[in-house]
Amino acid sequence: MIGRLNHVAIAVPDIAAAAEMYRKTLGAQVSAPEALEEHGVTVVFITLPNTKIELLEPLGGESPVARFLERNPDGGMHHICYEVDDILAARDRLVNSGARVLGSMEPRIGAHGKPVLFLHPKDFNGTLIELEQA
Amino acid sequence: MIGRLNHVAIAVPDIAAAAEMYRKTLGAQVSAPEALEEHGVTVVFITLPNTKIELLEPLGGESPVARFLERNPDGGMHHICYEVDDILAARDRLVNSGARVLGSMEPRIGAHGKPVLFLHPKDFNGTLIELEQA
Repeated sequence: MIGRLNHVAIAVPDIAAAAEMYRKTLGAQVSAPEALEEHGVTVVFITLPNTKIELLEPLGGESPVARFLERNPDGGMHHICYEVDDILAARDRLVNSGARVLGSMEPRIGAHGKPVLFLHPKDFNGTLIELEQA
Repeated sequence: MIGRLNHVAIAVPDIAAAAEMYRKTLGAQVSAPEALEEHGVTVVFITLPNTKIELLEPLGGESPVARFLERNPDGGMHHICYEVDDILAARDRLVNSGARVLGSMEPRIGAHGKPVLFLHPKDFNGTLIELEQA
């Protein structure tokens, strides 16, 4: 069912410093920051030859990464995103197997403009998984 | 400098259960477990179209993932591995920029039989980074 690794998201307390570190110290190709107000994050995309890293800094009072950074002030790996061909078929397979889908169970439109779901970390080895319809 | 995302490593308390979850619930291609005694882990490789996930369970008394699991009993994302062309050039660039390389500063032979280094999470947004010479 799961296909490509779409991205790994890393929550960071200071996205300008983190982007500069990836650009200068690690020599990676780094985008300009984009404020995604409806998602509560500012994001920087790091393009690797086979996938990408997304740096996420909280934006606004309801950011989904703010609590993560309270627990992990230095930042850390926040979630991993796998692509699926059919998000509704994926959801039904997961629910039938007893795994928990977060939120309303209906896919939302994610930061890339595509339908996404998040899965409960307790059911997946403490890892927050995002599924994105490719 | 950094190239492909070689793998994301996820520490798990029960590798048989985690492998079965990736195989059955997420429909991924999952290897048989391999005990890597010299690395203190049992590993399962999950092959995705563009990269791989490695599930790590502690093996023996000196496992590098045992303390991580004490802090994160459900498991979680443990490290991320980027490929580099020249591990010694990468090390020198990192050291010159003030980033900390863990251990003796000399590359070790990693789980794939290639030279690797680990970088200090405090210098990289709370993320443990492995560099592997591709």
